[in-house]
Amino acid sequence: MRTHYCGQLNISHNDETVELCGWVHRRRDHGGVIFIDLRDRDGLVQVVYDPDDADTFATAEEVRGEYVLRIKGRVRPRPEGTVNKDLGTGEIEILGQELEILNRSETPPIQLDDDDVGEDLRLRYRYIDLRRPLMQDRIRMRAEVTRNLRNFLDNEGFIDIETPMLTKATPEGARDYLVPSRTHEGKFFALPQSPQLFKQLLMMSGMDRYYQIVRCFRDEDLRADRQPEFTQLDVEMSFIDDEDIMQTMERMIRQLFKTVLDVDLPDPFPRMTYAESMQRFGNDRPDMRCPLELIDVADLMQDVEFKVFAGPAKDPKGRVVALRLPKGGELSRKEIDGYTKFVGIYGARGLAYIKVNELANGRDGLQSPILKFLPDEAVNAILERTGAEDGDLIFFGADKTNIVNESIGALREKLGKDRGLMEGEWKPLWVVDFPMFEFDEGEGRWTALHHPFTAPKFEGDSIEVNPGTALSRAYDMVLNGSEIGGGSIRIHRRAVQEQVFNLLGIEKQEADEKFGFLLDALKYGCPPHGGLAFGLDRLVMLMSGASSIRDVMAFPKTQTASCLLTNAPSEVSTRQLRDLHIKLREREKTAE
Amino acid sequence: MRTHYCGQLNISHNDETVELCGWVHRRRDHGGVIFIDLRDRDGLVQVVYDPDDADTFATAEEVRGEYVLRIKGRVRPRPEGTVNKDLGTGEIEILGQELEILNRSETPPIQLDDDDVGEDLRLRYRYIDLRRPLMQDRIRMRAEVTRNLRNFLDNEGFIDIETPMLTKATPEGARDYLVPSRTHEGKFFALPQSPQLFKQLLMMSGMDRYYQIVRCFRDEDLRADRQPEFTQLDVEMSFIDDEDIMQTMERMIRQLFKTVLDVDLPDPFPRMTYAESMQRFGNDRPDMRCPLELIDVADLMQDVEFKVFAGPAKDPKGRVVALRLPKGGELSRKEIDGYTKFVGIYGARGLAYIKVNELANGRDGLQSPILKFLPDEAVNAILERTGAEDGDLIFFGADKTNIVNESIGALREKLGKDRGLMEGEWKPLWVVDFPMFEFDEGEGRWTALHHPFTAPKFEGDSIEVNPGTALSRAYDMVLNGSEIGGGSIRIHRRAVQEQVFNLLGIEKQEADEKFGFLLDALKYGCPPHGGLAFGLDRLVMLMSGASSIRDVMAFPKTQTASCLLTNAPSEVSTRQLRDLHIKLREREKTAE
Repeated sequence: MRTHYCGQLNISHNDETVELCGWVHRRRDHGGVIFIDLRDRDGLVQVVYDPDDADTFATAEEVRGEYVLRIKGRVRPRPEGTVNKDLGTGEIEILGQELEILNRSETPPIQLDDDDVGEDLRLRYRYIDLRRPLMQDRIRMRAEVTRNLRNFLDNEGFIDIETPMLTKATPEGARDYLVPSRTHEGKFFALPQSPQLFKQLLMMSGMDRYYQIVRCFRDEDLRADRQPEFTQLDVEMSFIDDEDIMQTMERMIRQLFKTVLDVDLPDPFPRMTYAESMQRFGNDRPDMRCPLELIDVADLMQDVEFKVFAGPAKDPKGRVVALRLPKGGELSRKEIDGYTKFVGIYGARGLAYIKVNELANGRDGLQSPILKFLPDEAVNAILERTGAEDGDLIFFGADKTNIVNESIGALREKLGKDRGLMEGEWKPLWVVDFPMFEFDEGEGRWTALHHPFTAPKFEGDSIEVNPGTALSRAYDMVLNGSEIGGGSIRIHRRAVQEQVFNLLGIEKQEADEKFGFLLDALKYGCPPHGGLAFGLDRLVMLMSGASSIRDVMAFPKTQTASCLLTNAPSEVSTRQLRDLHIKLREREKTAE
Repeated sequence: MRTHYCGQLNISHNDETVELCGWVHRRRDHGGVIFIDLRDRDGLVQVVYDPDDADTFATAEEVRGEYVLRIKGRVRPRPEGTVNKDLGTGEIEILGQELEILNRSETPPIQLDDDDVGEDLRLRYRYIDLRRPLMQDRIRMRAEVTRNLRNFLDNEGFIDIETPMLTKATPEGARDYLVPSRTHEGKFFALPQSPQLFKQLLMMSGMDRYYQIVRCFRDEDLRADRQPEFTQLDVEMSFIDDEDIMQTMERMIRQLFKTVLDVDLPDPFPRMTYAESMQRFGNDRPDMRCPLELIDVADLMQDVEFKVFAGPAKDPKGRVVALRLPKGGELSRKEIDGYTKFVGIYGARGLAYIKVNELANGRDGLQSPILKFLPDEAVNAILERTGAEDGDLIFFGADKTNIVNESIGALREKLGKDRGLMEGEWKPLWVVDFPMFEFDEGEGRWTALHHPFTAPKFEGDSIEVNPGTALSRAYDMVLNGSEIGGGSIRIHRRAVQEQVFNLLGIEKQEADEKFGFLLDALKYGCPPHGGLAFGLDRLVMLMSGASSIRDVMAFPKTQTASCLLTNAPSEVSTRQLRDLHIKLREREKTAE
């Protein structure tokens, strides 16, 4: 139906007769002539109709925004002075000869060049929102990213293998989405949170290298940037160690950024232990573009009378840190109040600070509501340890360790962005040497920090003697403050797997019920293996500069897990429920 | 951990020291020497340990089948007379120097070289079944097929776009798998039977060319070759007509067969109308390798006294056909009884036949239990119309049209295979000009033969005047008797879509509830568009020569939709159900 895409045309097509299809982006009447900007996925081109051909002109007069047209015309240079340098096709226009209206359009509820449309409206009329060039670019970049990743992995001998979506409920972590079975009364499938066990089984099947770009599901309370269904690049390799998989994945991401964005990522990626990352940045996914760091000062505060600091300083589960903000002296009272509110989100009950006006002036050169509670030696030691200079501001966090880490860790990144301190565009990092377990105070038991199939760094008695200090062979790839991938070497020995289940308080019967097939499989020659999974939505979001993963998904759900376009989820008939051997709790109550 | 895959080695590696990882396929002691066939995904290689190094030899003695090893050794030619031509590595062996047991194995429940293991056992121990070279080849061919299809479509400008898995229940066709929502009490998502509406919305979004290799779900009673979840290659294009999409898809399949199987498919594929296919072959997915055809003889039978023929011959909903089997005179009584039983599966109440022994002998040259019921002129007309020759056998089908079509259509293909009549290896075919609607006698209403979004061949009044004769712009790609792909040009005008909903008895309120978003979208500039979906499992099954789609899926389900490996579906806790606002019907009854 066409000879070219609109956006492909340029002066080299001069004098050619072309046929185009697309949408009316704009229509203007000017000097007795009709100008139509025709849009398709490749761009815009200007088509001109003059009144010489009365019939065609009359049709052109009918045309409105978002009408679907097929046109035929001759390419010609634009008259001098009307060239549009901002447009790929801006040197030319089409002198329209024919015009067919393929479909009409009512006035659309979203204007395509309005960037301020509310997200609800965008999601409800997604098919119009997706016509916007920005959204088209993002969706196309996503396809380019997956294609690039597939090509890399295909060439490295990885086999693309599909795993089931209707599978068994998993025990740890987030809630499963359940699917009632019609043929097995009272039983349920679960949608996979990840293909973890299947990819391990594929290694036991001798597939050697596996990958899959696969949908995963988590029925979580949705935070700002989570979706009930999301896409993972899932990778697993046999007969390898930590080094092999990390190097392979690093190469993959490096060539991805080079090909798609023409960006050179460092070779190799820097690495940091979990312990160091928590200490210096308060979390395990630090944004390395931000030069600010958390500096421990608990040892300086143990004997001060200021309880807010001395308490956490003396508490083995507490932490006291300083965060020096260069030129922070410029912050207004109002800005500081804003940051105090910000750390409150993370549970911090306040945000102490010292402004360093003039070091040479001693205490008088400092300005702080807490100064009066701190002895000279403590103040001097802080100034020295933080390397404070005139004009700086030092923030403090003092509380339970996790509150300090979360609040001051978040403050660090916020200050980095607000104050324009970020250095460099892309800063990847491997975080390694994660703890094997963390103690769940609520449940009074050890839980797996990654998942219960992660191999410990040292096997044998060591993990049982002190689970709290045992390290795992897990690794996370972090980019600009986001965890974009995570994985581990897996347990390949049955005895070690049983030991870990044991430590996690998973009893033999429960282990057999839930993981019997895995424990069985470990009996019949399981190779050493490990892998990684990348969050594709997050990765594409970062690469495309979008601010939400919803902007790189064609049909995302809202934060309450509903689809505004189709109105899913929706009610179903009683007959459907009866077929599935279930009934609604609510309806049942009413009936009684 | 290794320098090569086992199967890669050959005489060109002579004298190299190599390191390999893999499974012990076989271990033999022979003349004081231990031979280990080491297997990985690329093949087998023979490793020899002699007693010179006592420690390594002792380890080699421990080794059993399916142990996981890492070995180091030197490649050398096999001694004369021991070369194995059947093995890629058969000219060489490895003189083992080191041997590390990475993991042990109990005696596996499946022997890898036993081709007669029951399918239940294979599915339960799928991770062992998948180690078999045949299964490895199939899974790898599947990856090769998807890679090839993706490359073709990427190069043709199609964009790979993901659509939701948690979506809205669809109204027509098979049962949906439902997913209860936790955040929206009493509401349910449905897993997609296909991304049909989303891909149409993507065309309305101006994406122009879309594809996706996507999981689909149907909660049907599973026939021999169906799975509750299956994979589709889904394609859609804008601004095209039937010809464009059919030619593009044909090219795709042609280059797929050329690249993967080195097979030249015809260019172009032959085409046949639905009506002709039903008439000549009894179904709309004829195996064109089979030269047999159904020949209508109702006109010859209307006045015979033989009620079995005359009844259907006079019934407007009946059909009487002959099927000539060349050299069918060879069939034994027992074989004919077998075929009679076979057509019984499809509802036929018998299978009349005439053996043509010697035409020159008139009636005496024929042999048949029904001969006495038929007058000479009818018999002669049958012989002439079927072109019968000495030694042939003519089968007859006479019943309601659909029973004749199904039974004799199936018999035709079975005879073709049993009697070695199949001509050529690969015979693709387009079937076109499908009816738009079929009348559901049970429900007393018209239903869509494809789906309600399929465009009619002629718009306007014609479809309303006589829905039974209206043709659609649907097309199926058939290969060797299987429908491998099907699609259509879609309705892109709102008025036509409403007209079709109307004819299907979908009332305005119901249409708005279920398809309101589609009808809405049709208001805002929908381009002409159409597409196709291929059943990937079926396609790979045919290409790999497997006899079931289960053999080209890594982790398939049984015919009762359960997974023997993981024991899914399984029971879940009452708490989980409560979170989802549902309860079991059964359990509830007991409680009362």
